[in-house]
Amino acid sequence: MLQRLGVFTLCLTLLTPVGWSADGDGLSGYAAASAKSEQDWEAKFRAIPDPANLRAYMQRLTARPHHVGAAYDKDNAEWILGKLKEWGLDATIENFDVLFPTPKERALELVAPTRFAAKLEEPAVASDPTSGQHAEQLPTYNAYSSDGDVTAPLVYVNFGVPEDYEMLDRLGVSVKGAIVIARYGGSWRGIKPKVAAEHGAVGCLIYSDPHEDGYFRGEVFPDGPFRPRDGVQRGSVMDMPIYPGDPLTPGVGATRGARRLAINEAETLTKIPVLPISYADAQPLLAAVSGRVAPESWRGSLPITYHVGPGPARVHLKAAFNWDTKPLYDVIARIPGSANPDEWIIRGNHHDAWVNGAQDPVSGAAALLEEARGLAALLKQGWKPSRTIVLCFWDGEEEGLLGSTEWAEQHAAELQQKAAVYINTDGNDRGYLGVAGSHTLEKFINGVARDIEDPEAKLSVWKRLQFFRIANPPANAADRQEARTRADLRIGALGSGSDYSAFIDHLGVASLNIGFGGESEGGIYHSIYDDFTWYSKFGDPDFTYGRALAQLGGSAVMRLADAELLPYDFSDFTDTIRRYVNEVEKLAQDSREQIVERNRRLDEGLFAAIENPREKLLPPPKEQTPPFLNFAPLENGFAALQRAAEQYNQALAQASAAGGAKLANASLREANAKLIAVERSLTLKDGLPNRPWYQHQIYAPGFYTGYGVKTLPGVRESIEQKQWKVAEEQIARAGRVLENAGETIQSAAAALSSVAR
Amino acid sequence: MLQRLGVFTLCLTLLTPVGWSADGDGLSGYAAASAKSEQDWEAKFRAIPDPANLRAYMQRLTARPHHVGAAYDKDNAEWILGKLKEWGLDATIENFDVLFPTPKERALELVAPTRFAAKLEEPAVASDPTSGQHAEQLPTYNAYSSDGDVTAPLVYVNFGVPEDYEMLDRLGVSVKGAIVIARYGGSWRGIKPKVAAEHGAVGCLIYSDPHEDGYFRGEVFPDGPFRPRDGVQRGSVMDMPIYPGDPLTPGVGATRGARRLAINEAETLTKIPVLPISYADAQPLLAAVSGRVAPESWRGSLPITYHVGPGPARVHLKAAFNWDTKPLYDVIARIPGSANPDEWIIRGNHHDAWVNGAQDPVSGAAALLEEARGLAALLKQGWKPSRTIVLCFWDGEEEGLLGSTEWAEQHAAELQQKAAVYINTDGNDRGYLGVAGSHTLEKFINGVARDIEDPEAKLSVWKRLQFFRIANPPANAADRQEARTRADLRIGALGSGSDYSAFIDHLGVASLNIGFGGESEGGIYHSIYDDFTWYSKFGDPDFTYGRALAQLGGSAVMRLADAELLPYDFSDFTDTIRRYVNEVEKLAQDSREQIVERNRRLDEGLFAAIENPREKLLPPPKEQTPPFLNFAPLENGFAALQRAAEQYNQALAQASAAGGAKLANASLREANAKLIAVERSLTLKDGLPNRPWYQHQIYAPGFYTGYGVKTLPGVRESIEQKQWKVAEEQIARAGRVLENAGETIQSAAAALSSVAR
Repeated sequence: MLQRLGVFTLCLTLLTPVGWSADGDGLSGYAAASAKSEQDWEAKFRAIPDPANLRAYMQRLTARPHHVGAAYDKDNAEWILGKLKEWGLDATIENFDVLFPTPKERALELVAPTRFAAKLEEPAVASDPTSGQHAEQLPTYNAYSSDGDVTAPLVYVNFGVPEDYEMLDRLGVSVKGAIVIARYGGSWRGIKPKVAAEHGAVGCLIYSDPHEDGYFRGEVFPDGPFRPRDGVQRGSVMDMPIYPGDPLTPGVGATRGARRLAINEAETLTKIPVLPISYADAQPLLAAVSGRVAPESWRGSLPITYHVGPGPARVHLKAAFNWDTKPLYDVIARIPGSANPDEWIIRGNHHDAWVNGAQDPVSGAAALLEEARGLAALLKQGWKPSRTIVLCFWDGEEEGLLGSTEWAEQHAAELQQKAAVYINTDGNDRGYLGVAGSHTLEKFINGVARDIEDPEAKLSVWKRLQFFRIANPPANAADRQEARTRADLRIGALGSGSDYSAFIDHLGVASLNIGFGGESEGGIYHSIYDDFTWYSKFGDPDFTYGRALAQLGGSAVMRLADAELLPYDFSDFTDTIRRYVNEVEKLAQDSREQIVERNRRLDEGLFAAIENPREKLLPPPKEQTPPFLNFAPLENGFAALQRAAEQYNQALAQASAAGGAKLANASLREANAKLIAVERSLTLKDGLPNRPWYQHQIYAPGFYTGYGVKTLPGVRESIEQKQWKVAEEQIARAGRVLENAGETIQSAAAALSSVAR
Repeated sequence: MLQRLGVFTLCLTLLTPVGWSADGDGLSGYAAASAKSEQDWEAKFRAIPDPANLRAYMQRLTARPHHVGAAYDKDNAEWILGKLKEWGLDATIENFDVLFPTPKERALELVAPTRFAAKLEEPAVASDPTSGQHAEQLPTYNAYSSDGDVTAPLVYVNFGVPEDYEMLDRLGVSVKGAIVIARYGGSWRGIKPKVAAEHGAVGCLIYSDPHEDGYFRGEVFPDGPFRPRDGVQRGSVMDMPIYPGDPLTPGVGATRGARRLAINEAETLTKIPVLPISYADAQPLLAAVSGRVAPESWRGSLPITYHVGPGPARVHLKAAFNWDTKPLYDVIARIPGSANPDEWIIRGNHHDAWVNGAQDPVSGAAALLEEARGLAALLKQGWKPSRTIVLCFWDGEEEGLLGSTEWAEQHAAELQQKAAVYINTDGNDRGYLGVAGSHTLEKFINGVARDIEDPEAKLSVWKRLQFFRIANPPANAADRQEARTRADLRIGALGSGSDYSAFIDHLGVASLNIGFGGESEGGIYHSIYDDFTWYSKFGDPDFTYGRALAQLGGSAVMRLADAELLPYDFSDFTDTIRRYVNEVEKLAQDSREQIVERNRRLDEGLFAAIENPREKLLPPPKEQTPPFLNFAPLENGFAALQRAAEQYNQALAQASAAGGAKLANASLREANAKLIAVERSLTLKDGLPNRPWYQHQIYAPGFYTGYGVKTLPGVRESIEQKQWKVAEEQIARAGRVLENAGETIQSAAAALSSVAR
């Protein structure tokens, strides 16, 4: 209980509701007696996970390549199912049939001014036995690239994000009819071919610059953890910011009989062929590009002068795929709730990989499996969770969150009714706690993190993260002060990149993504070297962070499943929403000022005056001065939310003072139902502009970032894209969901007040 | 006159005194009639400089290597002398005899774990004829390195500045008994062996990483302007922040009969042997270093993982020198003043180089020569400058500001009496105006810059610089606003690195350093490739910026030499001093807060808690909490200065209103004498802590930066070095010089008032 002592707990006690019962010992949503019982059960649970098991699971699950369609993918699913059943859990495999292209032909060659044929192959490493399983490995490729056979001049586009194309415009370089070469990083990879195609490129190469995860970072594999010269990052380039999951079944489960689009109707396939390459293959291509020297921030760590082109390098790129349908094997275990079986706590991690996938995903999947073993053991000891727990081992995450998305779409109606919380993991490393998710769960997960011990520092993972936040740039004095004194450490918002997406973005289920990291960097992501040899040397060799993850995930699931009142909190949530509102208001103001300033410079002739004639930059285009936007609807929505949050806190305090309530109390059931509905009330059925699948109005992956979150996405992205009319509409819509959320919170408060009476 | 129109001139008119005479058309210090005459003469002058001459001078002066001691160094001096005389100027060569070591033996080899012998040679380039003059070239070396023959493990120390050693301490790496390898950049090169020796290193290598001026920046020579793989930066490593000039004659001119120190008494020689190397020679050494991976900001652009060491690389370094005395040839021309011959305007640029030296220094020296031709032509047309003009072509700048320092020391008494302003140049490139110097001259040089046309943009160089300041990061909205509305563009403060040092730092002569740059980057600095071939292709190929420099320098000299009242201004000066006072007060506060915060972290156990066990960082040492410092003396001094500046402005306004005065007026003479004395009053005879040669209390090169300025150096450096007691003393001393300056300004105001009566 070390982590509960000291100044921080004091602050917590003073500043926040202390729980459902005044005697609840800080366990929110629990009456005194049940809090004690919960703590006992959780303590028992946390003693169970064993690093030796994690190690053994990883060895088994990574023994062969296990991508979708591989024999060992199915084999793993069945082995997981067997384990779950062996431990006494009610488990099953759910199948879906999805479009999953694999390479039929891949070719890349420099055809001018000199010739060079790219190897497109990752060599085996003698000290790494599984790296030699060539027959079973997927070749290096980007899934959902279109077929294509193009020969064109090469243009280097840095990360290939929209800002890079703004710079290309100023450099006077067009990618129209060209093949672009972008480096990995700066966005989710699928953004690169999408933006390239929008600008008229006919092909896209994506390479791993040693600056990002190669020798610039440290020793390369097998001497160190970083990407060797021939290492390639595979990965999906499906346009997931439109919708993830099977491209042919948007919005519905890809069951055998589901209605499917024709392949050419699928919006999420790339418009141009794409191929990922190593830096050994990229260097001769980049060295053959001349023209303007690349802007300084575009230059990587290859021993060359980086140029933009176009040409004189000309490249022939050919990519042809087998457009097959492949089966998915989602392994789902259910622990039925004893009191509230229709309130679900869902926990998931995918089991499929690009190749052997030790770090991604087995380091997380193994922890979930050990978590399952622990919960199963408690059940045998008499533990009876109040809510239903659903444990999910997803298939097909790598290709586009296939297994989770299809499952969530298939069960959408039931999930909308019953899903209280989804907790995701996806790989795990040594280091600090990382949490992102719904801010209604910020206080809750802070509480759990205080109870998990960091295996290195022997402090709570919460305390260690607090120290990290205090110590690490860009922390300024104000950030430090906040990290030291705010009751809860802030959590991030969820963008995309793992299986929470369908839950939070599409269905509006409050979600969390958790894990450890920051101390075991590497460069084997999505390569044949992400395997047991790598992970047991450079990842989490003694699997103690894997144990911590199992303890954290399991404790969170138990605490949510057993709470009499679901421990959502609306103070941290409101505090966070205030920041987002401030951000979008500032964004609008800054955007306006930037355009005014730039137009002024154009009028003054500034761009021409300061131009270096040897490095000409075209002036940016003149733009219409943006209107001032009406943020009143958003402010009104926020005010309603804030009032509701205060009412809820009062109702909670009264209920606490009244000493909790009986579990059978119908008002309590009503309160829980309303609480579950709060996240749902943050969605709108017609979704975000041009992407109706994304219904959540507070969180979404950026249309042009992919991984990176855009909060208040409708408002923020329309301002970023200078669509002022859309922005006004989106402000009104965002204001409306805040009002809706306020009403739902108020109804929860009303139910709670009747509990207390 | 384009540049005088518009909003900026309007602001100027409203905010600042308009000149000595109310009719003075903005020419400060001139009565109406004399302003008109001055403008006519200046216009005539600016029509004279001819790019064809600059080109011819450069071809002649760079035809052979012309370092101190080279036959062609003397030859160039005599040729310059001949030119000056040919144009009718009174010119002479002044000789000094200085210690100038040249290599007898240089060897560098990796002896473990593998063997590699460094080449230490710059190869000739076929397309560059002078690059093949091996017989006359100085080998690659650092002048004033000590002799040494050491074999030791290698440690990579990044730039080798004090902060880097703080990081090494935290990494647990000591350089005691090691040879350090530092990259060029981050400080003046002489700092690197000095700090290395302070930490116990036995040898020092300095290499040019391609990140700083090689292929990372752009094409390498001869295809482009950047440093080729075997290119080496020669240069002095004399400890100039103690005193520049001949190491054996500190404070006095190195005339034949001067009293000299023994070599082993000279404080400014390095304590350990130093050798500069190319990146071709550095790469095998760095690749052989292992141990901890270097911190991210330490990594350059070689295709290796940068490690810190120590070892296993062991290096044998041998350097032995001929410790010879060599003659200097300063070429000095005098144009006697017609009315105030004992008030001197001094203008200088060095003529010596490390090798052929086209950019450094001939691009500047040629402009000065053309400037001299222009002034000589005006004299023949009847122009009679009121003050004496002294034109100086210094020798031995590269080795340690030898020629200028010895001359200034030799003539110190006379200069202290008579020197009004020193204007320095040292090389020139294409681009924007760059000015640093005494802020009493800020307004003056802004005025001159408004009259010089930029050859590319066809705007005044002032206007172009203003646009540049508006446009370029890190300009924020406030910086932009200031650049748009402040009457004068701010000028930088002078650190060191060129021949102004003895004038401003030692003698307290108001000084300026001017030039153009920013559009012709390169990597040939101090190599055999800095020659006519390079400059005429990559420097200023049509020599139009050379012409602009001659126009700027000559106009400034003329305007100072002819002004009835010297155009010092104390408003910009006071404004700048206020900023410096704010800075040191904030520095003390920040330093205190940092130490308090760090001590708190040590008490909390934060460092241990967040440590990555695989990348251990030792905690920093606990430090005593600094006292609050008493800044009152500095504030009082500032208040006195501010009052005096206001009084001066009032007196100037009255004098202007009175319509100027007769030149013969004794009070005017008195006012000018007092004005000249203002900069002198900013010095203290006992100088800065531990370096009495540096007498100026507002500007000095940093003891640990070399080039980089430290303003209010006594105060700032004692705070930086956490010498709190010294800081209190230095605050009082700085306050005193501000009071002294205030008194001198007041006496100038009093003299001016009596002029106006």
